[in-house]
Order: sequence, then structure tokens, then C-alpha cells
Amino acid sequence: MTESELYQWLGKYGIKTPQCRVVKMDEKINIDFFPAVLKIQSPKIVHKSDVGGVMLNLNSNEELENAREKMKKNIQEKHKIPLDSNDCFIITQMLEGEELYIGSVEDSVFGDIILFGKGGIYLELYKDICYIDSQAKEDEILRAFKTTKISKLFEGFRGSTHQMSEVVELVKSVQKLILSNPDILELDINPLKLTKNGLVAVDARIKKGSLVSGDTQRKLPRPDFLNNQRIAIIGASTDKTKTGHVVAKNSMGFKGELFFVNQKGGELFGKPLLKSVGEINGDIDTAVLAIPAQFVIPTIKDLIKKNLKNLIVITAGFKESGHEQEELEIGKLAQENNFNVLGPNCLGYFNDNTNLNLTFGTGNLKSGGVAFISQSGAVLAALMDSANTLEIGFSHIVSTGNAVDLESSDLIPMLQKDPRCKSISLYLEGVNKGKNLLESIRSCQKPIFLFKSGKSEEAAKAAFSHTGNLSGNYDMFAGLMKSLDVRVVDNIEALILKPMFHNSKEIAIITNAGGPGTVLTDAIVARGKKLYTLNDQNIQALNKILPEHWSHNNPIDIIGDALADRYKAALDVVDSFDGVDFIYMLITPQDMTDPLGSVKILKESVYKHKVAPILIGGEMVEEAKEFCRINKILFFSSITEATSFL
Amino acid sequence: MTESELYQWLGKYGIKTPQCRVVKMDEKINIDFFPAVLKIQSPKIVHKSDVGGVMLNLNSNEELENAREKMKKNIQEKHKIPLDSNDCFIITQMLEGEELYIGSVEDSVFGDIILFGKGGIYLELYKDICYIDSQAKEDEILRAFKTTKISKLFEGFRGSTHQMSEVVELVKSVQKLILSNPDILELDINPLKLTKNGLVAVDARIKKGSLVSGDTQRKLPRPDFLNNQRIAIIGASTDKTKTGHVVAKNSMGFKGELFFVNQKGGELFGKPLLKSVGEINGDIDTAVLAIPAQFVIPTIKDLIKKNLKNLIVITAGFKESGHEQEELEIGKLAQENNFNVLGPNCLGYFNDNTNLNLTFGTGNLKSGGVAFISQSGAVLAALMDSANTLEIGFSHIVSTGNAVDLESSDLIPMLQKDPRCKSISLYLEGVNKGKNLLESIRSCQKPIFLFKSGKSEEAAKAAFSHTGNLSGNYDMFAGLMKSLDVRVVDNIEALILKPMFHNSKEIAIITNAGGPGTVLTDAIVARGKKLYTLNDQNIQALNKILPEHWSHNNPIDIIGDALADRYKAALDVVDSFDGVDFIYMLITPQDMTDPLGSVKILKESVYKHKVAPILIGGEMVEEAKEFCRINKILFFSSITEATSFL
Repeated sequence: MTESELYQWLGKYGIKTPQCRVVKMDEKINIDFFPAVLKIQSPKIVHKSDVGGVMLNLNSNEELENAREKMKKNIQEKHKIPLDSNDCFIITQMLEGEELYIGSVEDSVFGDIILFGKGGIYLELYKDICYIDSQAKEDEILRAFKTTKISKLFEGFRGSTHQMSEVVELVKSVQKLILSNPDILELDINPLKLTKNGLVAVDARIKKGSLVSGDTQRKLPRPDFLNNQRIAIIGASTDKTKTGHVVAKNSMGFKGELFFVNQKGGELFGKPLLKSVGEINGDIDTAVLAIPAQFVIPTIKDLIKKNLKNLIVITAGFKESGHEQEELEIGKLAQENNFNVLGPNCLGYFNDNTNLNLTFGTGNLKSGGVAFISQSGAVLAALMDSANTLEIGFSHIVSTGNAVDLESSDLIPMLQKDPRCKSISLYLEGVNKGKNLLESIRSCQKPIFLFKSGKSEEAAKAAFSHTGNLSGNYDMFAGLMKSLDVRVVDNIEALILKPMFHNSKEIAIITNAGGPGTVLTDAIVARGKKLYTLNDQNIQALNKILPEHWSHNNPIDIIGDALADRYKAALDVVDSFDGVDFIYMLITPQDMTDPLGSVKILKESVYKHKVAPILIGGEMVEEAKEFCRINKILFFSSITEATSFL
Repeated sequence: MTESELYQWLGKYGIKTPQCRVVKMDEKINIDFFPAVLKIQSPKIVHKSDVGGVMLNLNSNEELENAREKMKKNIQEKHKIPLDSNDCFIITQMLEGEELYIGSVEDSVFGDIILFGKGGIYLELYKDICYIDSQAKEDEILRAFKTTKISKLFEGFRGSTHQMSEVVELVKSVQKLILSNPDILELDINPLKLTKNGLVAVDARIKKGSLVSGDTQRKLPRPDFLNNQRIAIIGASTDKTKTGHVVAKNSMGFKGELFFVNQKGGELFGKPLLKSVGEINGDIDTAVLAIPAQFVIPTIKDLIKKNLKNLIVITAGFKESGHEQEELEIGKLAQENNFNVLGPNCLGYFNDNTNLNLTFGTGNLKSGGVAFISQSGAVLAALMDSANTLEIGFSHIVSTGNAVDLESSDLIPMLQKDPRCKSISLYLEGVNKGKNLLESIRSCQKPIFLFKSGKSEEAAKAAFSHTGNLSGNYDMFAGLMKSLDVRVVDNIEALILKPMFHNSKEIAIITNAGGPGTVLTDAIVARGKKLYTLNDQNIQALNKILPEHWSHNNPIDIIGDALADRYKAALDVVDSFDGVDFIYMLITPQDMTDPLGSVKILKESVYKHKVAPILIGGEMVEEAKEFCRINKILFFSSITEATSFL
């Protein structure tokens, strides 16, 4: 494409380009856009600059004509390239304005993705860019764009009159362009100039080609994985060291029909151990496999005869141990017979609706609103155990394991429909069906919290050796998630804690020391949360119960000699403040402090707000911590820990 | 100053400026630097652009003369400003190049400070700037500069041939300029262009004035605060609820002479309680005051007669309670009689040399190489307690409190001279003598770890209400500290942990789960540390003792069914690897895991490398944690906590 053809092509999709005119070798020049740039346009010349074929900053038609003569002479005489009447010149408007960038790539995980941000050398230096899905709606485009610093130029920064809508329109044009040209692998509009007349594409480069998409669609709509009535546990075992024993034990609270299968026969928890799948009376909709890998495929074939809808393969020893073929075979059977597969190599599944615990994690699961999907069984096991200690409840737990079939993108729409799920927490290592994931999140109305491992190259390598999944570009991943309003967290504990606190906006601190109170304030602000501002009434209420020199401010410093009674008096008052969402009770061991007495208040009294003690120090606060552990009171041992989920 | 005078003035200090020529109203123009800019230069015109007094991009002397005619006409006819033969025009070279920035401010805390970085609108948008002390040496300038992203333009980025030395020379010129012009309050060289011929100042703006410096110098050299032979504790009390009792109790291990004073008389810990300072036999060099505030000044006057060298005022109730005058009086007495004052309102002082614990914190202090200076007594008390639990030892502890006299800047040179101090940890809230602090750090050869509170506006407000100290600009503070190679940490626990680990560069992970291993890898890399790379020999050694499917990579995934014996076998082998500095033992509770047995290894075996277990989960790992607590084994409960000090 010549430059003028390129401009025309971009224009077709509504992308603005500079004014331009093509002139012949000796044609009289008569343009009205100055300053202008003159360039040679000839199939014989690829690198124009190398032969003096570009001249900038020309201010009149006369200057342009002189420049053309000079250029012709230079090319023909100095560079010995003969020009003829097929060659011509292009004159373009020279534009003033900030250099921005827009482009697209076809990513192996997410398909076509648009990048927008600061251009020129700063594209690489400041990486002030955002990632936008080719299918993104206006709100996503805006959310992504607002994560860039350059977006301030569209919000009146230094008197700028540019509007965010200019960017949204441009992104939509680029979406249209890549949709209409599926053969584009990469598009680079660089520089993109922010001129008085809006965003103008000065140059563009295209790379054609095509990636094989990893996304596969099932021909038939899936059964609802979360609907389980008649369940079989294959490999239920009387041997306490076997996974199948733990799963059978955990499953006993199930409110539907439950069958145990073990070729050895016998009895377990008062139920017969059927010797084969065939012995089950009637169909079953959900089956768990906790049997050696070599029996998995034959058993699935038996289960298909029972009209299987959902299969949970806990058994390991597939892709992660070099047996990829067998794993693909499971996926193929699922496609052909339209049942769901969870795993293989997974921790199992929990659904609070029917009190169904089909995991080999802890059997002590509480009811709650958190749905948890995890690609790592170990992370899940640890967080299930932590949640149990912290009395955090789940609506669903799904361990996707090697994810031969069911992925987060399949599960999110099912969870969206289940009213017991209030929010979704995702632990992800790699993604196969990227566009599906984006679409499922786009259609989900519930808050989603997400942790993704494999941010660094080193970790991506470790994850690959561990799961065989590619981690992909983390910046792109996180950028796309933010554009979809997903809360991307930076520590795994936040996946269970943040759902409890993400609506807490205004926080109160009751502290017996100014220094740690200041440190906590910094940590809260760094997480984008704010401290509640005490009003006159609040201050008066606190004046009545606190010593004269209390801070008169939030953090509410109740002074170093505060004993438990003063903490209680302050808590009682602060708990009554309407604007407060959440209260930190910061306890630093000083001369007079009574950490144990101070946390006992939380067992003895009921507060309408969440209150969490932070106990900093060592032996002097250990007894208080022990009390909290025993009484399942959420507490923290450091300011970092206490704020890492905000 | 006119533009040409400004250029001349900057040139005097070696700062490059564009070529320029001043021409009269009708003088023939004959310059040879194109493109050029023409500007009116007249005392009658302040804002040149407003009257069309600037014309850019002029390419010949003829164009310049035409432009001058047009400009004259425009100013006189359209804007009705008569020009005469005193007015003239300035022609400057129009320069191509990146827009950078250099400037200086006179900061209320640190005095003259130079700012260098990306200029133009991006100065504000990207804040890619560094802070350099006006007294900084070359290594400091370079260290500061390298914290900016723009510094890559001087390291061959995209074929750039610019050298770091260009920036160092420019900074030195600006240092010379501000040193020679003490009346400059603010200097802004903006834009500073990075041209083919180096860094050129295109425009500059100066604000004159002067701040009153807070730095005061003592007339006489201070006594060495760390040298204590004969000590008096005033307010030593038999009443266990009194601070003076705790201090007296903690002091009992002191190897020098110790006197207790209490007006009530009697005996304490087998020593007489002298009724007044006068009763002490002979001079005393160090005194502690733990008496009511109103007795402090009279007692100091008595102590002066005893040739006092060092005074520690634990007593509170001065500036922080509105009694600033009394506090200043203490400072004045110290100046006049040349003794050091620590406090008032402080936690005290510990010196391991003579086993001198004059704090009212924990009495269980271990010997070690960490010198700790803290502006917050509560943070110090908590960290002393934590250090005790973690068996971390101190060489010195100094609680500066309200810091009427001794500040960190006075203490650092003393600690520098004491060979028992291996590193210095600083907890700072505000700084008074900024230039002194910079100079003391500059001269210190030991590693310094620093946490500063009051980063956010909200926290700065809290800190001010708590200590009465202004926090200053945190970015400037942190930038200056980094230029001095101070390790600025982001959590207070790192102040005691980082000194142990800051030399650990290559880390090994032994884990029973791939997912958490990947998360830990990300966290380590995010802290700028790296994973040790296993060589062939290492892999062979591990092959011998691990199951076939171990990760063959670091993180060393010893597989989910690992019991304590496999952890021990792996630890024994990894401990023998020369390149490893530090080993994490990541324990995630799974089906088979034995957390307690696995941590018991650390009590039963001795490893040459530091090994720290990370126990993630809840109840399932609680027993193992308890074992670590009792046996003083350093352990962590989360990956965030485990890496926050790296």
C-alpha cells in the first residue's frame, strides 16, 4: 500500500489521517495545508529517508516545488535511481501534537487485542498503555483508557479540551477495522498525533498472517455442572490413606442420592460399596473418579451408559506426567457424549446448595457467598483451611486442575445464575480459551476477585513445568481484567478476605500509639481506601470517654496507657458512627498495654461493624493472638498483613 | 534578565544554551543556525506570545527579515504598542530533541535540592524525576539518575549515543550555580533539550528569596553519646507500675557504675535510692529521667553540676502536650553546657557494649549487629518484642522521641565508629536537620535500612498531630535516600529482618506444591531477588532422593505426597549447594502433608544456610506454627509476609 492508499483505507473505518495530495513529477503544486512534508512515492524506493526522499517543514507551494526539484536531482544524480512519469510525490500536512499510539495484536491467548497509549520512544520507556478487547463495549474501553496516565490529557489536564469520547470513537474504528480484516496479525498506528482536530493517524504498519485459535466451542449446550442429584464416587475406599476415602467421608452430608463404587466391594460409612458402575440402580448425573489413572477411561465409558452429565476426575497422572494423549481422550469423550469434565488432577468440587463436598480438602466447610475457582489444588487446599479458621464460608468451590474441559469461562456463567454465589474468586495460572473468559466475565454481574500467578518470567517457567500451561503476558492479562472491572489482587489470601471487605470504603482506626497509627494510615491510603473523617459530634462523643490528649482525629489515638476498658469505651462509641464501614483495633505492646483483655472485648460484645485487631510485637501479644485463634476472631500480626486484602 | 543575558549567565556555570543573536529594529540579519526562532525583546512586552512576538521555524535570513517586518507591524498596528530603537529582536536556534527538565528548589527540610528528569507536560504526568542533593557527589548523582526511566536514553536505548556523564556534568553545573547564588529559591530550566550536541537549556525561570534554615550547629563537638561509664537513673522506683521501676530493672545488667535516685529514698534491687542528685558520689556521665515533667528542668540543673555528658529524658508531657517552651529550654541547657539529650518523650537507650538497657521496653534483648534508631517509641517497643521472639540481636537501640537535641543525623556518625554495629535501621517520622542527615549518611560506610511514615497526606496529618513534626515530601525524601544507597523498606518488620537477609541474592525453594511455588517465585522476583539456578550436578543429586516427577527446576517441587523425610532429604542436599544463600521451605497442607514433622527437622538438624518455613493454611498448619514459636524458629504464615523483607 502506498501512503495515500493507506490513508484512504484507514479513512474507510473512520480513522482520521492528515490531509494529503499526490502530485506528478512536474505538476504545478497548489495546496493550502502548511507546514507540509514532501516525500517521494516510487516502487523503486523502499527506504525514502536513505535517498533524501523526505523533506519536512515546507511552508509554501514555492518551497514545495523547489524541494521537489532538489529531491529529484538528488535521487537521480547522487543515488543513481532513474525516475519516470510513473513515479510521483506525496505531500502531507505536518501535524503538531502529542505522539500517541494505537495498535492491535493477535494474542495466542486472547485473540485480537487493541493497545492504546503514549507513543514514540515513550511507548517502550513508560509503557503507559492499556489493553482493550476487540469485542469490548464502551464502558470497558473507558475503564481501560482511564488506567493510563495519558488519559489526563482528555480530562482537562493543563487546559486541554480533548474529550475521552475521541479515544472511544477511535478504538471503535480500530475494532471495526480488525473485525473486517481477519488476516491482520499486527497493526501499528504510530505515530498517532493528538492534534487540535483530534486524533490523527500519521503512519501505520500492518503484519498479515493468522494464529490458530485455541478456542473450541462445544456443539451442544453444556449441562449445568452445578445441578447434581444422583452422585457416584468411584474409588470410595475404606483405606484411610486413600483420596477416595477422604472424598467419600466429605460427601456424607449430601442431601441427594449417593452411591459408592469400589471393585473390592464391602461397606463404607454404612453404605454398600458397589463393585462396578453397572451395579448402580438407574442413571447418575455426577460421578467422581478417585481411581488409578489406567482405569479412568474404561470407567468413563461405563458411566456414559448411565447418562452421565458431570464428571470430576480427581485422579492425577495425565498431562502433568507426560500422558497427554489419555487426557485428550477424556476431553473427546466429553465432547461426543456432552458431559462436563472437571480435572483431571484436581481437588474436587463443593456446592453448598445441597451440602455437597466432593473434595479431598478439609471437611469443615462453612456456608457463605464466596464461589472459589482454582487452577491449583494446593492453593485451594490452603485457602479452604484458612477460611475454615477464619470462619469464611463458600457457596461453591471448583478445582479445575488440568482443565481438559471445564475452565473458569464455562463455570462463571453457571455461577452467575446461582443466587447463593455472591462473588467469585479466581486463582488462575494459565488461560486457554481467552476470548471465552473475557466474554463470560463481561456477562457476569457479580464482583470477581482474581489472582494470577506467573507474572515474572521465572514464575511463568515454573508454572509451565508444573501445569504445562503458558502464562501469557501478565500486563495484558491484568489490563484486560481491569477493563472488565475485575479486582486483581496481589496475594492469595485476599481471594478469601477481600470479598468480605471490598465494600468497606471508610475505615476507623483505634490505636494506643501514634507511630503505628500513622503507618497503618499510609498502608490504607496506598490501597486506595480512605479514613473516616470524624465530625464534631463524633469528637464530642469521644471527648467524653477519652483522656484529654487523645488525637482528636482518625486514627483515634487513645494514648499509650490505654487498658482494655478504654479500648472498649472507644469501640462502643466508634461502632455507633454511621459513616464507618470497618474498624481496626491497633494494639502495640507498651508499658501498660493489656493485649489479651483488649481482644476479649470482641468475644464479649457484639459490634455492628467488622472489627479486626492488629497485634504487633512478639511474646507480649502472643497470648492475645492465641485467644483470637481459639475463638475464631479475625486478627492480624502486622500492618502489611492487615491491609493486604483492602 | 533578557533571554540573551539569561543564556550568558547560564553559560558562566558551564550550562549549554542555544546559539542566539540579538538584532536591532532594522539591522541586516546574517546568521547561520537554522531553523531559527525570532522573538521580540522589549521591556514593554511581558507575554511575547500574546502579541504575536514569537515566530518559529524560520529557514533563511530572508525569512527572518520578512518575519521581523510582519512582527513589528503586528505589534505596533494591531496591539498598539509603539516600538523604538531601544527595542530589539532575539534570534535563537530552534532545537530538535527530547524535552527534559532540570531545576532546583529550596526545600524546608533538605535545603537546596536538584530535580532532573523528563520535562514538558510529562514532568507532571509521569513524574519521572530524581532528586539530587546540592552537595551530592558523582556516585550519588548517578545513583539518583539511574532511578529514572529517562536514564535509558543515556544507556544506548534505541541506538542513542548519549552518555550518563553528560547529565552528571550538567548537575554539577547546576550545583555550582545554586551554590554561587544563595538567593535562588527556585530554578526551572524547562525545556532542557537533549540535542545531538548534548543537553541544552532553552529557557529558565528563577524565583528569588530565602527560607530560614532549621539546621543549627553546636558550637562545640558533642561528647560521644555511646560512651557511658557512670550512670544515674532519676526516678528509679519501687512501684512496679512506674516507668522508672522498669528502667531500673532493665539496667541491672550494666557493667559500669549505676546510681538510683528517688526523693523518697529506700532501696531497690539491693541498691540504695539516693534522695537527690547531689548525694551521688562523684561525676556521672549519663543520666536517665523518669520523673514528672515539672521536675525535669530543675533536675537537669543539678545534673550539670555533676559534669553530665548524656541525658535521656523518658518523661513525656512536653511539645506533644503543648509545653514546647519547656522542651526548648532543655535544648538550650544542652547547648550551653555541651551535653547530649535524647528525648524527651522517648523509650530510652540500649548499648550492647556494656550490656546497658536503659529502656522501658522488653528486658530480654539479645546481642547482635543491628543498631536501631526510632522516632516512635511504640514501633520500637513492638519491634524489640518481635526481635526477642525471633532471636534477633541489637548492638544499640536509640529512641529519639521528640528529638529536642539528638537526631538520627547526630547518632549515625557515632554508630559508624562503633565496630559492634554492623548495620543501622531507622524508623523516621519527620526530619528537622535535613542537610545534616544527608551528610551523616553520606559519610556512613554501613548498610542503612529505613522506613519513613507519613507518605500519604492523611498519614502526614496524623503524624503531625502526633509528633508536631512535618513529614515533608515523601517522594523527595525517598529519592534522596536512594541516591545515598539507603535501603528504603515498605514495612516496619523489614527493619529487623532485612539486615539478616539483605545479602541473600540467590534463593532456593523447596515446596510440596507447584502453585504456591509459582506464587512465591513471583513475590521473590518482584522484590528484585533471584532464584538459584540448579546445575546438572544439583539435579543429579536431587534425582537420587526425589520421586521421578519432581520439578527438575527451582522451585524444587518435591510433590504433594511429601512427608517430613522427603523435606529433610531435599534440605540436606540443597543446603550443600554453594550458590544458594537462603532456603524457603514452603509447606502447603495437602492430603498427606506432615507440617509439624517437617518443621521439626529445623530443630533436629543444623543447616549452614538460613532456612525459613512458610506454613500456609489454617488449622492444619497451626501445630507446626506453635512448634516454631516455642522453639524460636523463624517462620512465616503467608507468602506476602515471607517476602516482605527481601
